[in-house]
Amino acid sequence: MGGADNRAFLFDIFGTVVDWRSGVAAFAAPFLEERGIALDPFEFADLWRAEYQPAMQRIRSGGRPYVALDTLHLENLDRVLEKTGLNVAFDNKARQALNQAWEHLPPWPDSVQGIARLRDRFIVAPCSNGSIALMTRLARHAGLTWDCILGADIARDYKPRLEVYQACCQALQLPPENVVMVAAHNDDLVAARKAGLATAFIPRPREHGDSQKTDLEPVDSWDMVANSLTELAEIA
Amino acid sequence: MGGADNRAFLFDIFGTVVDWRSGVAAFAAPFLEERGIALDPFEFADLWRAEYQPAMQRIRSGGRPYVALDTLHLENLDRVLEKTGLNVAFDNKARQALNQAWEHLPPWPDSVQGIARLRDRFIVAPCSNGSIALMTRLARHAGLTWDCILGADIARDYKPRLEVYQACCQALQLPPENVVMVAAHNDDLVAARKAGLATAFIPRPREHGDSQKTDLEPVDSWDMVANSLTELAEIA
Repeated sequence: MGGADNRAFLFDIFGTVVDWRSGVAAFAAPFLEERGIALDPFEFADLWRAEYQPAMQRIRSGGRPYVALDTLHLENLDRVLEKTGLNVAFDNKARQALNQAWEHLPPWPDSVQGIARLRDRFIVAPCSNGSIALMTRLARHAGLTWDCILGADIARDYKPRLEVYQACCQALQLPPENVVMVAAHNDDLVAARKAGLATAFIPRPREHGDSQKTDLEPVDSWDMVANSLTELAEIA
Repeated sequence: MGGADNRAFLFDIFGTVVDWRSGVAAFAAPFLEERGIALDPFEFADLWRAEYQPAMQRIRSGGRPYVALDTLHLENLDRVLEKTGLNVAFDNKARQALNQAWEHLPPWPDSVQGIARLRDRFIVAPCSNGSIALMTRLARHAGLTWDCILGADIARDYKPRLEVYQACCQALQLPPENVVMVAAHNDDLVAARKAGLATAFIPRPREHGDSQKTDLEPVDSWDMVANSLTELAEIA
């Protein structure tokens, strides 16, 4: 392979490349408003996202065969609507429309340019728990350009299972040490390093809003640390 | 999903989007020349490509587990070198270097622009027998931009097995009737139609050189027929 194509940067997406919390809140706001529901859209986004890890954990643990994240998002929405007593306000059609929130998330201000600059020299691809379908539509909406889409669908399992990172390297036919995992979450990088990948940490201190306490700093000596993806492109 | 993202165009690659014969010949020529081998590089390309279908057929028939096309290409090269008595002239390193020919194929003159124009309105992706690794590097070299890479690696089987077309539609979470298979080969479209996809035929009358006899015309009433991918973008 050509010199430029023997190294790759893989990206976590939700939180690292796109601002899921603002995006889901903005997408959900008119759904709530037109139904006269007083729930804060950001609280709604947080409630929905809170179901994310438990839903994947049932699959990671082997308790359920792999299903794409789009299905989990829809099931998680059902759960949130039930818990908040909003069940009757959303028919199936409205739920499916609302589930498209995850395809319409805004990139952080530095994401499009940073990834484009890295793509000049390296293969770039998502290594997300989002499906190929979801990552494809999200990228088109956000104006992101990838070389290919890797992640959970390729491995039919969910991060931080090591198999996901390994399957992405195998799909590119690259040894893990030639692949950098980029994430705003330390636990993602802990797993990527265990799988043999290099690591890059980008803090996203407002992913969870103003009062965020987690992932404000690197918790280990990651191979690269940068304040943005454009800065990462400069030091890579 | 958004209106623009509920239809997709999938592309055969070798022959339809890129000129594999000229590309392999051009890449192989210096390898032959520096070894003083008088074999015509185009004949060499044809000999190599002649091993393509039999190698995949062993996998399609269930006689061998799925392996990526890159591996088959390398094995097929071994076979060609043995048949032509050129075995001793190529060590393993030279064989691996020569195998990269498939990552360096030139697009037909209309491919980059035609696919870019289709991408303005539709999801675009390869549905090739080439691996994700191969399609990724080929696209970077040829200047092609895809939304994602689908095909054999997704299905772990080879076209024209219907499972490959079906797996690509499932990966995009689209019903097959919303997906158009684009190919210069009638048999690819016969299979795609059986799998429920719409079909678009683009003749590539010089894929096999000046004396090409096959696939000069559509052999069935395909949903779209165009003389180039730019013309396809106009009628789509």
